[in-house]
Amino acid sequence: MSEKAINFKDKFSKFSEHWTPKVIAEMNDYQFKLVKVEGEFVWHDHPDTDEVFIVIEGELIIEFRDGQVTIKAGEMYVVPKGKEHKPVANQECEILIVEPKGVVNTGDSGGDLTAQNDVWI
Amino acid sequence: MSEKAINFKDKFSKFSEHWTPKVIAEMNDYQFKLVKVEGEFVWHDHPDTDEVFIVIEGELIIEFRDGQVTIKAGEMYVVPKGKEHKPVANQECEILIVEPKGVVNTGDSGGDLTAQNDVWI
Repeated sequence: MSEKAINFKDKFSKFSEHWTPKVIAEMNDYQFKLVKVEGEFVWHDHPDTDEVFIVIEGELIIEFRDGQVTIKAGEMYVVPKGKEHKPVANQECEILIVEPKGVVNTGDSGGDLTAQNDVWI
Repeated sequence: MSEKAINFKDKFSKFSEHWTPKVIAEMNDYQFKLVKVEGEFVWHDHPDTDEVFIVIEGELIIEFRDGQVTIKAGEMYVVPKGKEHKPVANQECEILIVEPKGVVNTGDSGGDLTAQNDVWI
């Protein structure tokens, strides 16, 4: 029985909208989600969990109240739980997020950019 | 305050040995580990956790008792908990593993390839 790996580029080719995470895999109670982003997201935090960003293509800036980090393709960063952050991408950027199942993209901040959760692709 | 992202290639340049996972980040009680592999690993399983393999460079084959999966650069695969598997790389391959802190690379199988745990790079 031959199993099939999950190909990031193949999955990214299946959608075009921004700021809407798509689940591609689960590991225990964690999910791996692909997101295309462009422009500025909202300030928010996740009070109960760290959040991992891995950039697949492009460049993501995560602003903090006291600084920022630039994450390029082939790089990752862990935003500590409870730390306010605002993702920004000056051009379209493709990212892989790892976090516990159930985490909402805008944290407790809500708003128009709040995406439906647990959407698989 | 400017934070620094974790660059996979930069981290891989710091070691050359095979089958010895190096921790590069923690998210809650999970760890992200880089490994260089070549040749055949031992049959083993992890009875308490799924295990994620993301291939950064090269090609990894994971054999199962009833089949196999080939994971190329830009692809990932989740080995379900308790499922016996044997990683094999015909040429050197660079991978990123995600799993709970404390997981031993050879599971309960032991042997010469059992690596020291929680080694950071």
